[in-house]
Amino acid sequence: MFELGLGIVALAGLLALAFAAVLTAWILKQPKGSKKVSKLSDIIHEGAMTFLNSEYKPLIVFVAIMAIVIYLTPIPNAAALAFIGGAFCSALAGNIGMRIATRSNARAATGAKKEIGRGLKIGFSSGAVMGMTVVGLALIGLTIVYNFFPDPEIIIGFGFGASSIALFARVGGGIYTKSADMGADLVGKVEEKIPEDDPRNPAVIADNVGDNVGDVAGMGADLFESYVGSIISAIAIGFGGVTIAGTSIPGEDAILYPLLLAAFGVFASMIGAALVRPGKGSDIGSLHNALNKGVFGSAILMIIFAYFLTNHFLDTLGPFYAMVTGLGAGIAIGLTSEYFTESRFRPTRSIAEASQTGPATNIVSGFSVGLGSTLIPVVSVCIAIGLSWYFAGLYGIPIAAVGMLSTLGMTLATDTYGPVNDNAAGIAEMGGMGSEVRTRTEKLDAVGNTTAAIGKGFAIGAAALTAIALFSAYIDKVGIEAQQLSINEPMVMIGLFIGGLLTFVFSALTMSSVGRGASSMVKEVRRQFKEIPGILEGEAEPEYRRCVRISTRTGLKNMLLPGSLAVVVPILVGLWSVQVLGGLLAGAIITGLLLAITLANTGAAWDNAKKYIEEGSLGGKGSEAHAASVIGDTVGDPFKDTSGPSLNILIKLMAMISLLFVPLFA
Amino acid sequence: MFELGLGIVALAGLLALAFAAVLTAWILKQPKGSKKVSKLSDIIHEGAMTFLNSEYKPLIVFVAIMAIVIYLTPIPNAAALAFIGGAFCSALAGNIGMRIATRSNARAATGAKKEIGRGLKIGFSSGAVMGMTVVGLALIGLTIVYNFFPDPEIIIGFGFGASSIALFARVGGGIYTKSADMGADLVGKVEEKIPEDDPRNPAVIADNVGDNVGDVAGMGADLFESYVGSIISAIAIGFGGVTIAGTSIPGEDAILYPLLLAAFGVFASMIGAALVRPGKGSDIGSLHNALNKGVFGSAILMIIFAYFLTNHFLDTLGPFYAMVTGLGAGIAIGLTSEYFTESRFRPTRSIAEASQTGPATNIVSGFSVGLGSTLIPVVSVCIAIGLSWYFAGLYGIPIAAVGMLSTLGMTLATDTYGPVNDNAAGIAEMGGMGSEVRTRTEKLDAVGNTTAAIGKGFAIGAAALTAIALFSAYIDKVGIEAQQLSINEPMVMIGLFIGGLLTFVFSALTMSSVGRGASSMVKEVRRQFKEIPGILEGEAEPEYRRCVRISTRTGLKNMLLPGSLAVVVPILVGLWSVQVLGGLLAGAIITGLLLAITLANTGAAWDNAKKYIEEGSLGGKGSEAHAASVIGDTVGDPFKDTSGPSLNILIKLMAMISLLFVPLFA
Repeated sequence: MFELGLGIVALAGLLALAFAAVLTAWILKQPKGSKKVSKLSDIIHEGAMTFLNSEYKPLIVFVAIMAIVIYLTPIPNAAALAFIGGAFCSALAGNIGMRIATRSNARAATGAKKEIGRGLKIGFSSGAVMGMTVVGLALIGLTIVYNFFPDPEIIIGFGFGASSIALFARVGGGIYTKSADMGADLVGKVEEKIPEDDPRNPAVIADNVGDNVGDVAGMGADLFESYVGSIISAIAIGFGGVTIAGTSIPGEDAILYPLLLAAFGVFASMIGAALVRPGKGSDIGSLHNALNKGVFGSAILMIIFAYFLTNHFLDTLGPFYAMVTGLGAGIAIGLTSEYFTESRFRPTRSIAEASQTGPATNIVSGFSVGLGSTLIPVVSVCIAIGLSWYFAGLYGIPIAAVGMLSTLGMTLATDTYGPVNDNAAGIAEMGGMGSEVRTRTEKLDAVGNTTAAIGKGFAIGAAALTAIALFSAYIDKVGIEAQQLSINEPMVMIGLFIGGLLTFVFSALTMSSVGRGASSMVKEVRRQFKEIPGILEGEAEPEYRRCVRISTRTGLKNMLLPGSLAVVVPILVGLWSVQVLGGLLAGAIITGLLLAITLANTGAAWDNAKKYIEEGSLGGKGSEAHAASVIGDTVGDPFKDTSGPSLNILIKLMAMISLLFVPLFA
Repeated sequence: MFELGLGIVALAGLLALAFAAVLTAWILKQPKGSKKVSKLSDIIHEGAMTFLNSEYKPLIVFVAIMAIVIYLTPIPNAAALAFIGGAFCSALAGNIGMRIATRSNARAATGAKKEIGRGLKIGFSSGAVMGMTVVGLALIGLTIVYNFFPDPEIIIGFGFGASSIALFARVGGGIYTKSADMGADLVGKVEEKIPEDDPRNPAVIADNVGDNVGDVAGMGADLFESYVGSIISAIAIGFGGVTIAGTSIPGEDAILYPLLLAAFGVFASMIGAALVRPGKGSDIGSLHNALNKGVFGSAILMIIFAYFLTNHFLDTLGPFYAMVTGLGAGIAIGLTSEYFTESRFRPTRSIAEASQTGPATNIVSGFSVGLGSTLIPVVSVCIAIGLSWYFAGLYGIPIAAVGMLSTLGMTLATDTYGPVNDNAAGIAEMGGMGSEVRTRTEKLDAVGNTTAAIGKGFAIGAAALTAIALFSAYIDKVGIEAQQLSINEPMVMIGLFIGGLLTFVFSALTMSSVGRGASSMVKEVRRQFKEIPGILEGEAEPEYRRCVRISTRTGLKNMLLPGSLAVVVPILVGLWSVQVLGGLLAGAIITGLLLAITLANTGAAWDNAKKYIEEGSLGGKGSEAHAASVIGDTVGDPFKDTSGPSLNILIKLMAMISLLFVPLFA
């Protein structure tokens, strides 16, 4: 029975990969467009692969060192193997996702030339390849590891591998993308007054590469980690069996249940993806509807599937309710992000209005919107914690996280759709595809901005719930008495403070890296404008690759300090006191969630306030309000795309390490 | 013996008041200056008193309602009386402090005309009046209440009274001052390019009133609350006796000890104040030294006094070490603020340099400096918690807080010195006292900026340690089992999340209030510039009072929502679950400390980066870098003077309410 279950899970994983392969074949059959367009896409592709390949070097070193560390500590040796496997699967998923994304951008632009819905379809399919590859590799990896080593201590190694790649991809990619973006904007838009994505700007390719490196590979690795982490924490807590309201669930069932939920999620996601059929309507609303049908369709299907699964497989419906709570929290967080960051609604409008009195009021108003936007997401997380515990005890928390992430194949597809169509819009501009195509790709990009904002909110929520699940598993496993973990214990309080502190210091490091990277980029762009004759007249080609190199170097160099902080501090603190480490994890999760939401929503709201003005409101382009809103947008770049998302990794990674290294601390 | 001790404490309080009276008499004897200067001071005085008087109305309503609530709940009825007493003492201290501050500004400017050291002396004396009035009224109030009602439950009422006034003074005052400041700068400096403190700016008086309302009355009420709160939490924990490392201290001694420490602090502060003797040197360094002599002199004296007191009065030196830990943490936090916000050091320089690439990099770099500046203060607080607990158990935590605040008479004097000399510089400019006096008062103001930044850091540290002490007293009194307070309990975790959330939402509310207030101010100033002929030529007098009224209204109206949040949420949560409330307090303290430091230091660093450029670096006034730094400075206004300091009150007030209402929750 157990083997049969694992088999179904592995099969679901294979099916997901097959689905991704079919979509890939379809995408590659689409016309790539004119020679110029095709060449632009190739340069972006090449830049993105250069970054990935450069990233692999420090990454392999890191994985090798950590594998040795795991091998030398009292953690079972096979965990080192699982760790390498996890790292490999995550890196592979990112590689495939980015390869396809950078092959789809020109095709999406060319598709949009024919019909706007075609552009959406190509962008979405590219995202679905990423989504399905992530869940497919995760499920296959987990079942293989568990099949050979049915021991939670070893499977945690797999999760830690995923965490390590996520760290490099999110932090390094986040620094990369925003150094390029800020640098491009500061000289191009602000100093030289040339438009966004103008081919005369030497940093424009680096900026477009950044969208892939940060928003595709970074987001994918982030959610791969959450997906794997939520399942692993359920296995860690479920191992040995759990009792829910008097009904006992044997260990094997408690382990298989989250895996089966995830497997059913694959089917729900595939059906959801098939529901995304853009009609003839070309307005933003109907494009949106096409994507929403997929997201909500798969969520509803998932609830139905999960109900039958739980009813047949377990003797209690408790875990089903827990799972629904998680799914509900995910949707609530996503919708809140939409409300706070879309210019249709009051908050972003108020930022646009505040821009009329200059950049200072734009910044203050944006930041206060971001701070206030934490209310509903945090309350949603609290409700999810409370209810999932109420319905299924400690086991309920990871199950809620699994529920939130079960339809990841679909949600990640809509997230990744954003950067692909952002690239498509850039290529349409750079490739001179004409104003109509430009308008169409911009519409597709606008839809993508919303899905990206929702996706960011969802990623934060998923990270928080996964981290809480991993934290619960850590406490469960470390086996200290509850009274020693009282918030009134000075050691616990110190831990809470250090945990909160880490999130602030980590954000400071990532943010200042972007600042420094943007500075180097500004200098290089200024140099090229000065030294290359005819560049501003469009007669000479800028040296794009030099800018790509600067971003790559900045991203790789600056991820080391925050990255090692995230890895080394929990281990050192754990060696000192498992009490302090418990406090540290709780403090980091709480403060990290708040800070991540604030940074993400502030940045997105600034971005859309600017877009709102650019659409002609409050004076439109060229007005004082517009100039102010451009500054807010630029400040928001590292907020929403570097520091905010990096916090997701920090809180999960620290919880994962703590859980893995329990045998060393004990 | 106990009565004798209380007598000494009361005597120290009376002595502090007498000292304040002597200083007041000396200040009022100083020449007020020319008619124009004198009139300016009168307008500021009148504006400040108008705000105070308007503030008293909602305040009396609030105090009346809360007194009735306390009376109706199972809290001892006399606590309602103590509550009114606490509110009265705090309001009285603020009233006296602000009265003297607004009588000293012109005198300090006129004194500086004669000799720069005289300006310092007058400003400092004005601050010392505030400091001594605060500690004097606190000690007298506490001894009277404890003499009549020797019951910790009742004396907590006194603390809650102090908290309530602090809430109104800090939040209302903070919104007042920054609405005026931002409004004045946005139209005056940015749009019309007229200098700071220019009498043609209609909002200039409101801005100067704001310095008093926010930085004098607000800061005073904040520290009055911390001072009282730290002593009360020591009494609450010490009542019934404590045992430290096998040595038991009877209840009466444990109660008297913090009061005696505070009484000795009065003497140390008075001697410290006498040490502040500006020599003939007129450079900023030697002015600084004069103040530093007082601060460090009183700290060293305090340690000596405390050693002898502890040695004679108790059978263990544990509490002495705890007290030193607190004092040390206070100094460490203050010095960190100095390092991160002074343009002599790397962080602020880096912000100034980032201004060269525009406002966006100025903002990003400043914010990342602020985030990173949390490291040392939070580690200091952790060390203080750990060591004070190690040396004196649970009792050690409030004693550490008492230690940090023991020389408040002196530290508050240097804090309040800042806004008085800020006003003096403004009056010198507005009153046309000539460039030499202006230069001198600006030097005094520069010294004041540093002491104010240090003072803000100190106020945050004091608030955190006091809040932790009050929180410990709450947990001690609420009597739930330690395992129910485990960070792994879902109820506790939900509490931690809600607590952290409150600090973010509270900051959002206070920050957006300033934004809205500044907007109204901008509109009014623009209107006056347009409608009053000759105003920009200096031929017609602006309608200063209209701007004062706008600030007053904004401050009073907008403090209600964040204020009621701070009062109502803990009571409601406590009625639901004391577990959740425990988590809430811990979460709010941790996140609040981090956020408050970030906001305060970011704002101060932006301010000083601008000053650094204005002194001629990186292109000086009129350069692109300067324009960018002005924007950062404006953004920093609500950060450092409204939202940041308001968090101090939030975390203390919530802990105080929770402690007071324990009988209702139980």
